[in-house]
Amino acid sequence: GYAKVDHHREIRNGFPEVIYCEGKTIDQVKGITLAMIQRGSSILGTRASKDVYEGVLEIAPDAVYHASAKCIVVNPKTQQLHPERTIAVVTAGTSDISVAEEAAVTAETFGQKVDRIYDVGVAGLHRLLAQLDRLRKAHVVIVVAGMEGALASVVGGLVDRPVIAVPTSIGYGASFNGLAALLTMLNSCASGVSVVNIDNGFGAAYTACLMIKD
Amino acid sequence: GYAKVDHHREIRNGFPEVIYCEGKTIDQVKGITLAMIQRGSSILGTRASKDVYEGVLEIAPDAVYHASAKCIVVNPKTQQLHPERTIAVVTAGTSDISVAEEAAVTAETFGQKVDRIYDVGVAGLHRLLAQLDRLRKAHVVIVVAGMEGALASVVGGLVDRPVIAVPTSIGYGASFNGLAALLTMLNSCASGVSVVNIDNGFGAAYTACLMIKD
Amino acid sequence: GYAKVDHHREIRNGFPEVIYCEGKTIDQVKGITLAMIQRGSSILGTRASKDVYEGVLEIAPDAVYHASAKCIVVNPKTQQLHPERTIAVVTAGTSDISVAEEAAVTAETFGQKVDRIYDVGVAGLHRLLAQLDRLRKAHVVIVVAGMEGALASVVGGLVDRPVIAVPTSIGYGASFNGLAALLTMLNSCASGVSVVNIDNGFGAAYTACLMIKD
Amino acid sequence: GYAKVDHHREIRNGFPEVIYCEGKTIDQVKGITLAMIQRGSSILGTRASKDVYEGVLEIAPDAVYHASAKCIVVNPKTQQLHPERTIAVVTAGTSDISVAEEAAVTAETFGQKVDRIYDVGVAGLHRLLAQLDRLRKAHVVIVVAGMEGALASVVGGLVDRPVIAVPTSIGYGASFNGLAALLTMLNSCASGVSVVNIDNGFGAAYTACLMIKD
Amino acid sequence: GYAKVDHHREIRNGFPEVIYCEGKTIDQVKGITLAMIQRGSSILGTRASKDVYEGVLEIAPDAVYHASAKCIVVNPKTQQLHPERTIAVVTAGTSDISVAEEAAVTAETFGQKVDRIYDVGVAGLHRLLAQLDRLRKAHVVIVVAGMEGALASVVGGLVDRPVIAVPTSIGYGASFNGLAALLTMLNSCASGVSVVNIDNGFGAAYTACLMIKD
Amino acid sequence: GYAKVDHHREIRNGFPEVIYCEGKTIDQVKGITLAMIQRGSSILGTRASKDVYEGVLEIAPDAVYHASAKCIVVNPKTQQLHPERTIAVVTAGTSDISVAEEAAVTAETFGQKVDRIYDVGVAGLHRLLAQLDRLRKAHVVIVVAGMEGALASVVGGLVDRPVIAVPTSIGYGASFNGLAALLTMLNSCASGVSVVNIDNGFGAAYTACLMIKD
Amino acid sequence: GYAKVDHHREIRNGFPEVIYCEGKTIDQVKGITLAMIQRGSSILGTRASKDVYEGVLEIAPDAVYHASAKCIVVNPKTQQLHPERTIAVVTAGTSDISVAEEAAVTAETFGQKVDRIYDVGVAGLHRLLAQLDRLRKAHVVIVVAGMEGALASVVGGLVDRPVIAVPTSIGYGASFNGLAALLTMLNSCASGVSVVNIDNGFGAAYTACLMIKD
Amino acid sequence: GYAKVDHHREIRNGFPEVIYCEGKTIDQVKGITLAMIQRGSSILGTRASKDVYEGVLEIAPDAVYHASAKCIVVNPKTQQLHPERTIAVVTAGTSDISVAEEAAVTAETFGQKVDRIYDVGVAGLHRLLAQLDRLRKAHVVIVVAGMEGALASVVGGLVDRPVIAVPTSIGYGASFNGLAALLTMLNSCASGVSVVNIDNGFGAAYTACLMIKD
Ligand SMILES: Nc1ncnc2c1ncn2[C@@H]1O[C@H](COP(=O)(O)O)[C@@H](O)[C@H]1O
Ligand SMILES: Nc1ncnc2c1ncn2[C@@H]1O[C@H](COP(=O)(O)O)[C@@H](O)[C@H]1O
Ligand SMILES: Nc1ncnc2c1ncn2[C@@H]1O[C@H](COP(=O)(O)O)[C@@H](O)[C@H]1O
Ligand SMILES: Nc1ncnc2c1ncn2[C@@H]1O[C@H](COP(=O)(O)O)[C@@H](O)[C@H]1O
Ligand SMILES: [Mg+2]
Ligand SMILES: [Mg+2]
Ligand SMILES: [Mg+2]
Ligand SMILES: [Mg+2]
Ligand SMILES: [Mg+2]
Ligand SMILES: [Mg+2]
Ligand SMILES: [Mg+2]
Ligand SMILES: [Mg+2]
Repeated sequence: GYAKVDHHREIRNGFPEVIYCEGKTIDQVKGITLAMIQRGSSILGTRASKDVYEGVLEIAPDAVYHASAKCIVVNPKTQQLHPERTIAVVTAGTSDISVAEEAAVTAETFGQKVDRIYDVGVAGLHRLLAQLDRLRKAHVVIVVAGMEGALASVVGGLVDRPVIAVPTSIGYGASFNGLAALLTMLNSCASGVSVVNIDNGFGAAYTACLMIKD
Repeated sequence: GYAKVDHHREIRNGFPEVIYCEGKTIDQVKGITLAMIQRGSSILGTRASKDVYEGVLEIAPDAVYHASAKCIVVNPKTQQLHPERTIAVVTAGTSDISVAEEAAVTAETFGQKVDRIYDVGVAGLHRLLAQLDRLRKAHVVIVVAGMEGALASVVGGLVDRPVIAVPTSIGYGASFNGLAALLTMLNSCASGVSVVNIDNGFGAAYTACLMIKD
Repeated sequence: GYAKVDHHREIRNGFPEVIYCEGKTIDQVKGITLAMIQRGSSILGTRASKDVYEGVLEIAPDAVYHASAKCIVVNPKTQQLHPERTIAVVTAGTSDISVAEEAAVTAETFGQKVDRIYDVGVAGLHRLLAQLDRLRKAHVVIVVAGMEGALASVVGGLVDRPVIAVPTSIGYGASFNGLAALLTMLNSCASGVSVVNIDNGFGAAYTACLMIKD
Repeated sequence: GYAKVDHHREIRNGFPEVIYCEGKTIDQVKGITLAMIQRGSSILGTRASKDVYEGVLEIAPDAVYHASAKCIVVNPKTQQLHPERTIAVVTAGTSDISVAEEAAVTAETFGQKVDRIYDVGVAGLHRLLAQLDRLRKAHVVIVVAGMEGALASVVGGLVDRPVIAVPTSIGYGASFNGLAALLTMLNSCASGVSVVNIDNGFGAAYTACLMIKD
Repeated sequence: GYAKVDHHREIRNGFPEVIYCEGKTIDQVKGITLAMIQRGSSILGTRASKDVYEGVLEIAPDAVYHASAKCIVVNPKTQQLHPERTIAVVTAGTSDISVAEEAAVTAETFGQKVDRIYDVGVAGLHRLLAQLDRLRKAHVVIVVAGMEGALASVVGGLVDRPVIAVPTSIGYGASFNGLAALLTMLNSCASGVSVVNIDNGFGAAYTACLMIKD
Repeated sequence: GYAKVDHHREIRNGFPEVIYCEGKTIDQVKGITLAMIQRGSSILGTRASKDVYEGVLEIAPDAVYHASAKCIVVNPKTQQLHPERTIAVVTAGTSDISVAEEAAVTAETFGQKVDRIYDVGVAGLHRLLAQLDRLRKAHVVIVVAGMEGALASVVGGLVDRPVIAVPTSIGYGASFNGLAALLTMLNSCASGVSVVNIDNGFGAAYTACLMIKD
Repeated sequence: GYAKVDHHREIRNGFPEVIYCEGKTIDQVKGITLAMIQRGSSILGTRASKDVYEGVLEIAPDAVYHASAKCIVVNPKTQQLHPERTIAVVTAGTSDISVAEEAAVTAETFGQKVDRIYDVGVAGLHRLLAQLDRLRKAHVVIVVAGMEGALASVVGGLVDRPVIAVPTSIGYGASFNGLAALLTMLNSCASGVSVVNIDNGFGAAYTACLMIKD
Repeated sequence: GYAKVDHHREIRNGFPEVIYCEGKTIDQVKGITLAMIQRGSSILGTRASKDVYEGVLEIAPDAVYHASAKCIVVNPKTQQLHPERTIAVVTAGTSDISVAEEAAVTAETFGQKVDRIYDVGVAGLHRLLAQLDRLRKAHVVIVVAGMEGALASVVGGLVDRPVIAVPTSIGYGASFNGLAALLTMLNSCASGVSVVNIDNGFGAAYTACLMIKD
């Protein structure tokens, strides 16, 4: 077929290629999955609908579906990436959780422990401050926030570790599908904050895992 | 001349017309000032350069120039708008101070007391929390912030009074001259926050004074 | 569950947390509603479909649905916020009414009287001028307008009270889903106008109620 | 030289070609002027600095400079375009006057009478309503406004003649150099309003004169 | 009900109010239609689906539906607006025809003759030049074009009458739903071109009719 | 130094590296020029001020400065790229000429003959049609236009050769520094038109020369 | 009917008119097809759904449907455009293939050989470098890429032939439906790259074929 | 004074507060510097002109000025952050070097070794591939690129460490002052790439140092 699976990626980049299922047919996803199973890869399919999962089940009966994350996982890494290190995944609201779960499931598939700290947006600061200990224990913090995305700056000012900010498309009107949160995060007055694409939980976790594994 | 000074405004809208000096010649500003002096108005000129001030001095020897605010004041209100009420004017950084001063001087010209709380941006949250008492005493809070503008949301979540957010053009790159801060503030996850134009300290104070005077 | 309801908000911010139903499952909304009922809160759910309402009815049989506003109300405040004060809610066209109703229902849920003045856009100025008395009696005016949003400036020039402008996404082509109206309102040549997010009737009413309650 | 003066334009389009001086050298403007003088054309140079005017004076000693309009006129039409018809040129503020003057001088050069109605923006509606008679006498109305540009809609709702709206780059922040006014005018809820480019006083007057001459 | 039909509009603005059906319920359209029938108005409903038409038929059995224009007409003007004058409605492609028809039907409802010149875009210039006579006979020309909208400039350079340009949302990719055509038309190097909103055939015809009726 | 001159480019890409002088110091330009002279390269410096040219003269006394194009040329190709083929460089206005000259000088430095056809914008179509023969003789046509950029589409419809469109930043207001012309050209309804960056005369000529040389 | 098929185009522009099916009814497409069949034209319908194809089959039983390309072909050219020349069509990912196929099918319909090189995006550079020979054999290279569109620059630096870049709307978030890839390609630091509209595979192939046929 | 230096930052965030000199007066910078000197902090002033440096020299005679980076350094860290780890700072062109130097000087001030790899943009891929060893030795890679910013994706695909991408404002036309490069980097098809604000060399280095120090 036309797809050229980048089997070499794990050696070159540290982690296996991941299947971005959006816009692929069920057959295409199955084909790529099969090729990767045959090489013994861990398999992660992101942006996968329930239907795609059911297709994958036919060739990988032990595939697991994480509904909120919209991820399919087959044969995840069983060895911990780094036993003493944690990634904190933090969200501003409950609507940001599915993007956060894409990040969390990605990290877990790569063998990495995650600490989920959800719904601690800055409108009720006490909720965030109550979790300060957990935040400060993390080796990297992924902050997932839509609307105005202010949480990344506040967290960035509270920790001494890198913060990866994920703007989400949650919001309406002048949120312009995540543009407002994206700009907020890029302009963060707190240092140590870098940013990935809108809704890109996967990319944030991939980057975080690179930091973890050393 | 062509200008139609809206002398009727104080009766209709509660405060006298204010002279926006940007793009007006010194003679135009002097002309309008004279017309207003003759009617006994308080006079506030915003966005005024030192040169404009020197012109105005010729016809109004007691005019005062507030350099950081770039405001000229003649004959300010001496009666307090409301003796028990305060407007807090808060800034995220030191670069936002000149916009904040435009707000503060506007309010003071209208007879209103101001509490200045500057350089308390969210990257160092302890600086803001240390001022919580002053913030909570205010009848209205004006939050002035550039870059990512997150301060408005954090303040909005801490007080039970209206917050007027003023995005500033401070920043670079993806701040797009204040657009990032503007979008942040419009999307604030804290309720009770409304927004005025980028760098519009005057407008924020005018609105705040309308709330104060009842 | 993951949601951290901010029960503390009423004390801190003056009004209880409000449930933004868009993008939440029926079960999530029911869960949050239940938690708030148990604490005796007034409950307001915005952007709620008929289906969500029916779900809520199961646990709150006296819940009321305001179809045009798309709001669910349980246990509204019965005590008036301030008996002598009114919020005027004004719209430019008939298509802006549902956003206006979100504002009106929000205020009423918080115990505040509302005066609805609808379909008085500037293309037929006599319709607006005919309502001048009602406008001038209001303590705050909420102006709801889409397309070019000019109504906010005209109203701002006619009253001596704060105007909260709500741009709506009504329009087509170069209205860019409310962006045109938003920019119009931010640039208002009338002083005393502040702006909330596109279609954010709730936010306007919340801010207005903060002004009312003192 | 490289420039191909479109001498045929008056026959084809009704009015002679006009020299847009911005970005042309003084020598280029003089060259084009000379070519047009030799054919007996009326000459209008727009966006002309004082320096360009002084250059033109050397070859056209009766050239007149309209400083506020930044226009050079040589040999204007002496015959009235239509003796009974007037173009009203209306501005919102005093800062919009130079664009309005570009429109007025263009029309006058083409032999057309103009009624100037300046500084009647919607923030003080009584100023506009006081001029209703003059407005309604016009055959076409040109509305020149920056900031939020709401004046076009209000005028459009008051007259039964075509309104040509000219957004200006006057304003700051979210006016985005005239974009806000442009969008306002394109979305006007009043019918009969069409729009030209930001600051294009010339284009508005040209179009108006086409309407006048029949 | 809430709608305030502007019955006074015909006297003030020259033509009756027109019903914009998009986003109105069938009952709302019927209600407004009824109120206008009772006053003997001509009725034009734009952006009307077949369903809305069927609803209107119940109360106005002689209502006519123009499917391509998506317009409902009841009781059109029978007296010609001006017997010797024509509006030419020109399109670049066949996909622009429905916007052109909105313009044509609007004009015809107001009693005005229209000359339709369709599918003469600049990619095949001979098609346009073949219609030069018809173009030059028109009192006003409405140019309807999507994609790059270049037709307005070319027509503007060929006629000595006003051109009203209507950008359409036809196109894809960098047409940004009509934005490209809109900008093209606003920047037209041909004089005498003014512009209305994207897809606003109605507005173009309304303006054209104001020019026709004198 | 830090610069790594890509001497290998001529072999790999067909033409030598070109020095983009904007933002480089005179010393940097001189350094790169020297390195290229030593290898016997043809040298083209674009966006060069008179000052940079004078610096280069010190090390390359036969350097030539093309003022309108803002180009420095040393040691141009003397062998014709293809004796029977011509590139037509066409502009809409006289203000677009300097971008056109950047294209023309680039091609000439690479040994390619150019036919300049300037000031033939679509507002006066007869000027363009009068040059049809020259246009149709060209092997490639470069169309340089600002404001609305419609010329690219019209030329594209008249020739059977590739058209390379160069939007220019000429214009004001809604031309947004060339964005309007760029969008026009990308959406061209004529086939065979491809587009380079705003004001990128160099890039257009480079691409054209690749087509010429085969 | 209203459509004016440009039968003259093949003589004037080198290739027959192509039917853009998006937004046309099945009957319209059939009508145009019939008119072209009668003249013996090759027929290419782009953006055609299966349904449109089935309609066309009724009048052209030998019509072929290319599902991935969404193209209908009737009576393709049988004579090769140029036997020794090839167009390489290159994609970054598998999701870009349908746009690439529109390009490939267009070229093949015009009698031109195509070399497909798919899924060689820059994240795994070895995949691209492995195809260097095929790339360098091509007379023109069409690069089709979404997301960040970096492939065009990399290819542009590796070949000495013109590169036509086609941004695709593949991606999410800050890809803004192809805008990111479009800007990338317009700013390419590699020379010899020109750009067509987002997803415009047809236009790229048309331009490439003009280069091939000489 | 008004400035509240965040002396606590080093403890909380790992590195001392840094002085952003843009828009501050010389006196303000001197004041903040003095306060920090008194506490024994390392001092880094970014975006500092030569004039500001001269002011600082008066109070800190051993201050060093890095002209290309526009940075003032007083009392840099002498202890290495991590002796075995390197940050590679990579640029696409020579014009990106000053942003890269801001990054490099920041890291060096914090005690971190930097490997500079400049002018290796993707238009000449061999230049980058020649540095592959150095790239792969780095613990973090900072990629600094303007124009289309493609280098970040290519580097991201070649290394197994985190890449921090810094878009620069280098370019013209459709680079929109760095927006094109920013979007490219956010949409990178290579995983492990996160992004900071346009021209934000400081922020990239700060984040990189957090990764280094563990
Ligand atoms: N949710 C996601 N968001 C962004 N990129 C992703 C996502 N999931 C997978 N990817 C990337 O997309 C690549 C596969 O793209 P493709 O070749 O089109 O299937 C993978 O190697 C990942 O780097
Ligand atoms: N700094 C400012 N920002 C925004 N609006 C202002 C400012 N200063 C004054 N204004 C408003 O501008 C009006 C005067 O505008 P003009 O008629 O153009 O002089 C005043 O009545 C104020 O409402
Ligand atoms: N102020 C103006 N704004 C817009 N267009 C203008 C202006 N003044 C002149 N023009 C137009 O610019 C054309 C001349 O352009 P050019 O050939 O570049 O000199 C004239 O024929 C007018 O149509
Ligand atoms: N197709 C249309 N496009 C733009 N405006 C329209 C259209 N049809 C009607 N209108 C305008 O919309 C007004 C009615 O708006 P509304 O009060 O919301 O029903 C009419 O008076 C017309 O001026
Ligand atoms: Mg919550
Ligand atoms: Mg500070
Ligand atoms: Mg109405
Ligand atoms: Mg005024
Ligand atoms: Mg056609
Ligand atoms: Mg010209
Ligand atoms: Mg792939
Ligand atoms: Mg270089």
